Order: sequence, then structure tokens, then C-alpha cells
Amino acid sequence: MKGIILIIDGLGDRPLKNLNNKTPLQVANTPNMDKMAKKGINGLMDSIKPGIIPGSDTAHISILGYDPYKVYTGRGPFEASGVGVSVMPGDIAFRCNFSTSDDNNIITDRRAGRIRKGSKDIVESLNKMIIEGYEDIKIVFKESTGHRAVLVLRGEGLSDKVSDADPKKEGKPPKKVVATDGSREAEKTADILNKLVEKSYEMIKDHPVNIKRIENNDPPANIIIPRGAGAVPKVESLNEKYNVKSMCIAETGLILGIAKFAGMDIVEVEGATGGVDTNLDNITNAIIENVNKNEHNFFLINIDGADEAGHDGNLKDKVNFIEKIDKTVIKKLLNLEDCYIILTADHSTPISNMDHTSDPVPMIIYGPEVRVDDVNQFNEIDAHKGGLCRIKGSDVMDILMDLMNNSKKFGA
Amino acid sequence: MKGIILIIDGLGDRPLKNLNNKTPLQVANTPNMDKMAKKGINGLMDSIKPGIIPGSDTAHISILGYDPYKVYTGRGPFEASGVGVSVMPGDIAFRCNFSTSDDNNIITDRRAGRIRKGSKDIVESLNKMIIEGYEDIKIVFKESTGHRAVLVLRGEGLSDKVSDADPKKEGKPPKKVVATDGSREAEKTADILNKLVEKSYEMIKDHPVNIKRIENNDPPANIIIPRGAGAVPKVESLNEKYNVKSMCIAETGLILGIAKFAGMDIVEVEGATGGVDTNLDNITNAIIENVNKNEHNFFLINIDGADEAGHDGNLKDKVNFIEKIDKTVIKKLLNLEDCYIILTADHSTPISNMDHTSDPVPMIIYGPEVRVDDVNQFNEIDAHKGGLCRIKGSDVMDILMDLMNNSKKFGA
Repeated sequence: MKGIILIIDGLGDRPLKNLNNKTPLQVANTPNMDKMAKKGINGLMDSIKPGIIPGSDTAHISILGYDPYKVYTGRGPFEASGVGVSVMPGDIAFRCNFSTSDDNNIITDRRAGRIRKGSKDIVESLNKMIIEGYEDIKIVFKESTGHRAVLVLRGEGLSDKVSDADPKKEGKPPKKVVATDGSREAEKTADILNKLVEKSYEMIKDHPVNIKRIENNDPPANIIIPRGAGAVPKVESLNEKYNVKSMCIAETGLILGIAKFAGMDIVEVEGATGGVDTNLDNITNAIIENVNKNEHNFFLINIDGADEAGHDGNLKDKVNFIEKIDKTVIKKLLNLEDCYIILTADHSTPISNMDHTSDPVPMIIYGPEVRVDDVNQFNEIDAHKGGLCRIKGSDVMDILMDLMNNSKKFGA
Repeated sequence: MKGIILIIDGLGDRPLKNLNNKTPLQVANTPNMDKMAKKGINGLMDSIKPGIIPGSDTAHISILGYDPYKVYTGRGPFEASGVGVSVMPGDIAFRCNFSTSDDNNIITDRRAGRIRKGSKDIVESLNKMIIEGYEDIKIVFKESTGHRAVLVLRGEGLSDKVSDADPKKEGKPPKKVVATDGSREAEKTADILNKLVEKSYEMIKDHPVNIKRIENNDPPANIIIPRGAGAVPKVESLNEKYNVKSMCIAETGLILGIAKFAGMDIVEVEGATGGVDTNLDNITNAIIENVNKNEHNFFLINIDGADEAGHDGNLKDKVNFIEKIDKTVIKKLLNLEDCYIILTADHSTPISNMDHTSDPVPMIIYGPEVRVDDVNQFNEIDAHKGGLCRIKGSDVMDILMDLMNNSKKFGA
């Protein structure tokens, strides 16, 4: 038996007045998800615990059976690992946005028009950066999907106890990074970061990629805004923890990074953008191919676009994207044999909130011998009537492993 | 008010194709259990937590309010205590099967034809055993129900970090016991056990009981196969923990042993075999009598046969046994007054799986003033719609004690 956990990032939502008090998932036309709900066992899941707003990272950490309160040391290290930077203990890693700054140091677009091309060239220039007074600190940038990038600082006397440069809203300058614990190491790291933000603008504002973007009326990717500092953690390998051969198919560096830390094999899919414009056919094919290869028996899949639509408050995009997932990915997965499929989300990103909330997410476990319940539709409201009731992210792997006959009795 | 927890061991199951996707409990005719469900509050219960496969021992430990992750040191000590061996801290205890070996050291029946008579006489012979080179180690055998027995090793320098001799399948020789932690104490204990298994065959293969069994074409109980090593733990008394006078009525040494460790008074019932052939009338009478004596106010009852049927994959036996419990035990319990009754299981032993699974078990709390819900039938599928939702084993005693007006407010 194989097991798949398919996570539709940010899928959960709240009832919307203009949807007649239904959620986007309720109004979306999802015949295949509903078929799974009907033939499976349903419930609600709190990735961490009720009332705690999960990040995508902490949610995935928890769903993979690790305690995020112990393992999570910031988003940067996971994202950096995910995009291929070989981070090492002692490194401090950050997530970055390519953003657009005007001449007066005001961020006019936090995501630089969601730049899709050219970030690699810009990163090449940035990797020549040396900060005066800190010549011994190695600075590594690496582009991720879209407007995302990572930054790793390597050297003596650094700390992850620093604040974010991200102002979180347009129309403001980058935030001054400060030491959050007052230590000398954190003061040093904050100073490096503040100089690095300034220097990034100098180095790339006239980069050929940006000259061209300005000509095309696209916001230039002319400044780097770091956030989510984290020191590199160590975690037990998932394969040993659960006696599986595990693979992760995901779009974003963040999720791939968590998978790497967990020692999973990872697959990057051509055309996977992490947005609603992602290539779902390629993702579907990657899943089917790898499942049928029989080289792995546990798969974690993450599809990111619904979360992006939620953050943008874009109802239409969210509903359309859910429907697209239904008729591409889900439809094909239903044909897999000897397989348990868990369909769920990592957290809610309600349209009305434009950020994560702690509302639990619907979950289906689909496969042989599950205790089928009365739920016929996959959504946040019907799910609680199902046979799983309300479980936690930390229960998910244990439940799946038992169904797969892949776990041991505790006691006799 | 009195409180009873009645555990039907291994009751939980999964939908079966040949039952039209119903569970054995769903198809069993159980008017009395259904009456309880209708008048009670229902829910699902995970003895330990969702996804964790409980043993009968760890499940009962958890339901009695102890943390199995702290208390559980292997099955042996609980079983030994339950059958009346006065174990002491430092002792290493094992569960044993009487098995059938052929001349070539191959186990042909792990349970020696589920021997019901004569094991006491065989144990008398075995208790003369002395292992050469280990003359200072005291060896105590004691028969339990059916093919079950216990072994206690007492002496200096022993360890419970040893593997099982049980090959788990017929057609194989006993497994060589090895030290699991490489310690000198474990090496010594493993060596003793390997010699003990060999010696047991020599000592009892020609025992009069076995000569007679062979004449009757029954598999002889001619070898002892130990497993489940455990050092003797200490636990707080249940009577002090919950301010009760507690009694356990159970069939197997394992459950009686847990009760003894918890300081409960125990009752052994004449004719209780731990199988589907057990004397349910005698068990019922023992319950009614002892409840009516008014000397105890908390009763833990365990009836074991449904678990045995599950392990055997015997659907018919499981359904019949459930029906028998319904019309004997449950029917009479419903007449008790001033009593809360919790009807549940310790774990699922699905017919299709023939071993324990983590699927949660149904639970009814029946008695005055409970918040009666809409559930009308006692089974794994309807239970989740009840007012208890999904709770943990560790919640059960607290809920019962509060209903009995036997617990204190935390705070003011």
C-alpha cells in the first residue's frame, strides 16, 4: 500500500456574504473531491492545534509528525534548503522578496509585479555583494519561484534573533532590522542586513532585467527585502521515523525545504509557479509517474495557488483554481490503485482575511476499508459531520501509517 | 453513585465487503446495547491517541488514567501479577505461550491447540527448572488462561532489554533471543532464555498431560515460548488517585495484572476462559453480585472473546459473541440502579486485519443526567455523531468521576 497526503495550500476559508454565506470551496464545482468525500472518511483538522494560526511551514512540519514548537527555527532555513542552497549548522537563512522601491526608498510593490523571469540573472549580480566591515561574512542569494528568493549568511558570530525588513504593506520604506534579544551577535546581524537591503538597491536598480521591465511598464525587481530569519535546525529523517520511502512533490522552496530537512526525495515540476497560473497537468503527471514507479510508498504533495489567491483576496481566482485542481489532479488520482489518499489543506487563508487563520481545514481519507461516513461534499462545513471528527496535524501520519499496515502496536 | 467501565476487548472493526460494507458490530443483533446508545451519550474514543495502535495493556493503562508512555515496561509484569505471581521490583517478567514443537524444533501450533486443561500440572514440572551456570536465578512459571502462562526471572544482573522467542508464525523454530541494547545484563538474560526454551521441551515433551493429548490427537503443550519482557514498574494506586474503592473483573492475567498494579481488588470468575467459549452468565453474576454488595464504587470489566475472534479472523465467532454479550451481560446491567455504565472497547481488532488497529472505538456513557444525543445504535459508524465527539482514553476516568460526583473542582 502507498500513501499520499495532498495539501491544497491555504484552501480553508470562511463563509462569505456575497456567496450567500457559503465558502469558496462550497461554491466551487468539485465533483471529484465530492466523490472522494462520499467514498471516504471525513473530518476537520487543526494543523497545530485549535486557535493557533499555522504558517505553511509549521503546518507541514506538524503534519509530517514533527513538533513545530521544537523544530521550527524560522522560515528561512527551510526555504533556502528547498531552493538548493546547502545550508549548514550555524548558517542564518532568510526568506526574501524581490520588491519594487522608488527613489525615495518607498516600497511600491512588495512582490515586484510577481516577476516570473529574470530573477536568476539579478541574483547572479547580487551574489557579488560584500558588505564593508563584514568582509568575512559569506553572502549567498538564490532565486525561488516568482518574486521569492532566499539569503544565507555564513560566518562567525551571527544570530537569528533579528526582526524582518519586510514592511508588510506597500507605501512604506523597508523596516529597519533590529536585534530582538539585544545580543552582540544579533546587533551585528541586524547591521549587516540593514546595509544589505540598501546595497541591494544600489546593485540591481539598473540591472538589464529591470531596465527591460521598466520599458515594459512592469515594476522592477530592484530591492531585496529579507524576513523570517532562522538558524539551521536538525530533524530526524522521515524515512526512519515511519519506515517509509518518502517523496515530496511541491512548488515552493519553502515546502521543498521542509521535505529536504526531513530527508525526503524531492521532485521539482516544470512549469510549477506556486501561483494560480501553475501547470497542474505537469504536477498531476509528476504524481502519477512517481507513484507508479514503485520506488516510494509515501508522497507529500503541495499545490500552492489557492493560498496565493487567498492572500490576494481574489475570490474568483481561488474558486477557479480549486475547480482546476478538481478536474486535473484529483480526477486522475482517483484512478490510482493500492493507495490511501488524504486530501486536505495546511491552513485556511480566507478571502476576507487575506492572511492565514486558525480555522480548521477539511480532510478526507480515501482508500480501502476506511469507515465511510455520511459526508458527500468536500468543504469546511460538511467535514465536521464525518467519522474523523476533529483531529490534529500530528495525528495524520500515524493514522495513515496504520492504514498502510506500516506501524507497530504500542504494547501487546 | 457507582461507575462501571465495561470493555469488550478488540470490539472495534472496519467495514467488510461481505457484510455489505458494514462492521461486525453493525450487523450483530444488539437490542440492549442499542437501548444504551439511545438513552446515553455516544462518541468515539482513542485509547491512547489517534493513529497509535494500542495493545490491550497500554489501552487499559491509559483508560485507567495512567500514562502508558511512562508506566508501560512490557507486558510480562502485568500478566504475571494478574495470575498471582507476587512480582517484585527488579524481577523480569515474560508472557509465555504453551506451544507445540515437533522433533525438529519447528513450532507447529503457537497455542498448543488452545489447551484448556492440564497446564497447571505441566507448570508444576517446569518449576523445578534450573539452568546450568545460572543456578542463582530463580525461575517461576505460572499458568494463565488457555495456552497462556507467565515466567518470572529473579536474581542479580538481569535485564528486560531482550527480544522475543515467539516466531509469531507457525512453521518456524523459536526465535533466538538476543540483547536489544548490547548490555551485559541483557546478554545474560538472553542466554538464560534460549537455554530455558530448549530445556522446557526436554522437560515436558513426555509429560503425562502431553502423552494424553497426543493419544487424543490434540497438539501437545510441549514447549514454552516467552515474549514481552518487562521489568516490574510501580504505579500510584487507583483508589488514592480517584478516591474510589475499585474492583476489576476480568478474564486474562494481563488485565488482572494491570488491575493489581493499580491496587484494585480483583475477581476471577469460574469458567472465564478469555475466549468466545467463556461463561458469560458467570461473568454477569459476578458483576451484579459485587456491585450489589456495595463494597466498591468503581468497576473495570474486561471481556476478551471478541478480540480472540478478531485475531483469528473469525467473523461468525465475533458477531455471535457480541450478540451473546448483549443478551447476557448488557441486558442484566441495564437493571442496575444508581450506576453510570461506560460501554466501550480498548481497541479495534478488525476481522480483515487479524491484529489491532488504531481505528477509534465506539463509547456509550449511560446513566442519570447525561446529555442524551441522537445516536440510536452502538457501532463504530454512528458513534461519531454523538455528543461526546471524539475523546481519549485518558479522559474517561475523569469524565466518569465527575458524573459520579467524585471529583474536585480545579480552581474556585
